[in-house]
Amino acid sequence: MAASAPASSRSAGNQKTPGSFCLGRHTLRIPMELHALNRKRLCERLREKVPENAVVLLMGGESCSRDSSDVFPVFRQESYFHWAFGVLEPDCYGAIEVSTGKATLFFPKLHESFAIWDGRIKPMEEFRTHYEVDGALQVHEVCCNLLISQLCRYDNFVDLFQYGLNTDSGKYTKEAVFDGIGKFKVDRNSLYPEIAEWCIYVDETLPVSCILMVFSRVIKTSQELRVLRYAARVSTNAHIEVMKRARPGMKEYQLEALFMYNCYYFGGCRHVAYTCICGTGSNAAILHYGGAHAPNDRSVNDGDICLLDMGGEYYCYASDITCSFPINGKFTPDQKLIYNAVLKANRAVIAAIKPGVDWVEMHKLANKIILEELIKIGILKGDINEMIQANLAGYFMPHGLGHLLGCDVHDVGGYLEGCPPRPEGLGLGNLRTARVLQANMVVTVEPGCYFIDTLLDRALATPNLASFINPDVLARFRGFGGVRIEDDVIVTETGAENMSQVPRTVEEIEAVMAEGQNSLEVPVPELLALGKAVDLIPSE
Amino acid sequence: MAASAPASSRSAGNQKTPGSFCLGRHTLRIPMELHALNRKRLCERLREKVPENAVVLLMGGESCSRDSSDVFPVFRQESYFHWAFGVLEPDCYGAIEVSTGKATLFFPKLHESFAIWDGRIKPMEEFRTHYEVDGALQVHEVCCNLLISQLCRYDNFVDLFQYGLNTDSGKYTKEAVFDGIGKFKVDRNSLYPEIAEWCIYVDETLPVSCILMVFSRVIKTSQELRVLRYAARVSTNAHIEVMKRARPGMKEYQLEALFMYNCYYFGGCRHVAYTCICGTGSNAAILHYGGAHAPNDRSVNDGDICLLDMGGEYYCYASDITCSFPINGKFTPDQKLIYNAVLKANRAVIAAIKPGVDWVEMHKLANKIILEELIKIGILKGDINEMIQANLAGYFMPHGLGHLLGCDVHDVGGYLEGCPPRPEGLGLGNLRTARVLQANMVVTVEPGCYFIDTLLDRALATPNLASFINPDVLARFRGFGGVRIEDDVIVTETGAENMSQVPRTVEEIEAVMAEGQNSLEVPVPELLALGKAVDLIPSE
Repeated sequence: MAASAPASSRSAGNQKTPGSFCLGRHTLRIPMELHALNRKRLCERLREKVPENAVVLLMGGESCSRDSSDVFPVFRQESYFHWAFGVLEPDCYGAIEVSTGKATLFFPKLHESFAIWDGRIKPMEEFRTHYEVDGALQVHEVCCNLLISQLCRYDNFVDLFQYGLNTDSGKYTKEAVFDGIGKFKVDRNSLYPEIAEWCIYVDETLPVSCILMVFSRVIKTSQELRVLRYAARVSTNAHIEVMKRARPGMKEYQLEALFMYNCYYFGGCRHVAYTCICGTGSNAAILHYGGAHAPNDRSVNDGDICLLDMGGEYYCYASDITCSFPINGKFTPDQKLIYNAVLKANRAVIAAIKPGVDWVEMHKLANKIILEELIKIGILKGDINEMIQANLAGYFMPHGLGHLLGCDVHDVGGYLEGCPPRPEGLGLGNLRTARVLQANMVVTVEPGCYFIDTLLDRALATPNLASFINPDVLARFRGFGGVRIEDDVIVTETGAENMSQVPRTVEEIEAVMAEGQNSLEVPVPELLALGKAVDLIPSE
Repeated sequence: MAASAPASSRSAGNQKTPGSFCLGRHTLRIPMELHALNRKRLCERLREKVPENAVVLLMGGESCSRDSSDVFPVFRQESYFHWAFGVLEPDCYGAIEVSTGKATLFFPKLHESFAIWDGRIKPMEEFRTHYEVDGALQVHEVCCNLLISQLCRYDNFVDLFQYGLNTDSGKYTKEAVFDGIGKFKVDRNSLYPEIAEWCIYVDETLPVSCILMVFSRVIKTSQELRVLRYAARVSTNAHIEVMKRARPGMKEYQLEALFMYNCYYFGGCRHVAYTCICGTGSNAAILHYGGAHAPNDRSVNDGDICLLDMGGEYYCYASDITCSFPINGKFTPDQKLIYNAVLKANRAVIAAIKPGVDWVEMHKLANKIILEELIKIGILKGDINEMIQANLAGYFMPHGLGHLLGCDVHDVGGYLEGCPPRPEGLGLGNLRTARVLQANMVVTVEPGCYFIDTLLDRALATPNLASFINPDVLARFRGFGGVRIEDDVIVTETGAENMSQVPRTVEEIEAVMAEGQNSLEVPVPELLALGKAVDLIPSE
């Protein structure tokens, strides 16, 4: 029965083609080969470093309801597990035999009521065929005897668990754990650097394997680049739709709603890669605006700048794009000055990117261009080399120029042993990597210029910084907000490929927004039937 | 400085009115008085049960990034904490002095870089004024000395922690924990039954306080009913928009995308109350379709039934509405038969609801009507009382008739000590409460009729069930899917108020859908520019 079941799987998009994921003819079809290739390059590197009988065991993401309720947020697979297997369901394990590359997936045993409540119970053979692995077995949720007995086939094997620090979050990856784990010899050190290109000291008593930095999540395969291009394309289109529908009087969250709708409806992106940042007016100067403390809830006034940092995620691959534009579709002279300063930096960096280029130098290049432009505008004065020396640029761009992009929006592999350490200083010290670029790395290029009161006040109170500032001109920009221009870029063999082809020049943006204003009727809050809801008084 | 800060708070919608939450003129403004009233009724009941110096300490939801990444899903407050305080930010504590009702909130200390990255750092006095509590203090994230020293003011006090079982999820609520908790005498038993109307045995060595069942989350205040009405109104409008835009050839997830967009853009609902269930065709027979195993990814074919169970959530108050309709806007004769059977049950239950009515009897009423209609259709035959005796209805409706609704979609308070226990049997045994209805309870009324192969096969294989079935007629409905009609209902003093006024009769639904088909151009997948994305080959 199981063996003869069709290989198509609802979880993978109920398409007829076995071994692929797809969400409709308008979306990207992804062959499971993508993951086989990822496992292959992992094993190739591990073979030189670990005993012959080693097995890699990864634990997938766990389904978990919110607090004590039975509300389950939409599950999103743990990124390492997705990278290795492409399984989108929760509570799975996966094992890879390093010497042969053979892969086995372990799925939770589902209660028969699952078929009534949650979906068809797929036979293991269907999973095996769909995910194109060598074996698919069932693991009881509580007792993992089956998993253990399977692993015990590898006599006295060394189990490579995934355990490492993420320098963006400060959190450690979760090790695979199950009942009976004590029976195994566990090497926590070999795997993580290999898969993430990252060495850390797990325990002082254990040596750390330092392994070369290839075949990892940092360097993308052509299969992975296809998915990243698609996520960027969907997000690009969604940004354009938002620009066309932006109107004074809207709430910031309505721009977020438009973006998420467009990514999901047109592109199949059920998730965004991160919480949408919809900062308008002075909120555009809050770099990660949009979370619970500042939930995109401001009314956008005529004349305000909008800084929309939003990216859809397709098949657990991220995009990360920022567009900055005036809500009314027409840049003021000051908005144009700041915007063009940032755009110049963005374009110069993308033009300079190629293998061998130092990412820290790119950050400095962006800093220098923005300082030059701020001098032209009149906000700054004096010798640019002295400004650079004093790190004045960090006060206008207190974040890094960009970061690695992949299954996570801040992708892993930023600070590896053997790689350049984190630089110091405001902005520069916020870089998420200081590496030299290699072909098939993917990075964001996101220079910005912000007018952040606390930082401006600090600069004005610091004599060797204040001497460069024209306080009268600067005063004109208080409350301006900020501008960020962020693209998603593949480092190619000879240069850079910019995946995010949104309107970028002032003229392009104004043209797209005018087109939207002229052709689309957009409901703004005041006009809604729900307006009457304000007085929902009990009817008794 | 702090004292003179304006009381408006961005986290509460940056409106000018102090002590209220609002997301724009088109949305509902909610006064903080809602929570003061909740705390008041909690304290009034507790006063008789706990020592005079007792303090209730609640811990809010914690912010937590996904796996080891630095991606934070949009935070949603823990429901008990929201019910008591209305605080929408993470990582807070709240204390209530039972004797006086005085409330103190404790907020995490934010690093000064928070202002640059996440949002304005609000002074404590602003929090105090906005949330209308007696005190607002800062608690260091790690060391809670301040919290302890504040609590120590209550000499030898009894600390009432929240600890109880949620019978829908099987999970326990999280206790408030902090460094130094050992200094306090903790009573884990008094609070939970009071706040949730629920008694459980936490530990066999501890006695369980059984407290009366009033002033709790189960009985809603008029303030809470306003919010629930608003959430239902927003969701009703969104369902209507989905009906107007539903077209054969769409993917199920496009219906989900339309719903979520409408709830957020027009109603300010950043969250849905649960994962959207968009089951079409035979998927309409999978009760909780739409999760990671079955992610609304089927293409909807002409002639398919759609079962859309979707509800927006506003200000942590849920709605939960199911609409069933044919994707092409025109019911087939068989679809009409099943639909009208379920509608008859829905209407009969709503007409019967009033205080004093037994919820189990309502479930049985729905069962009986559906059986009667299935006899008329010819699927069933024989004596209806014998069918009821054999619980045949459970094979066509294997879920409960409905559940309590509030801050959680399956709201707390279903099975309390002193309340009727869970009944037995398929369907009936899935009821989330067996209580007698009281005024100002809010329940869903959601009868359904499904053709679930595993259950039909089981019934046909069970002689005393099979004898009631006409297999030839039943065969016609294999693969039909199912119909569920779900409304959100307030139990009033004299009857019921149905908050979800979606089109319900066959004629109403067909009229709304025809209006949508005639007036709206809807993009279906085949037509999209993204179609070219399928071949996103590397450009080199």
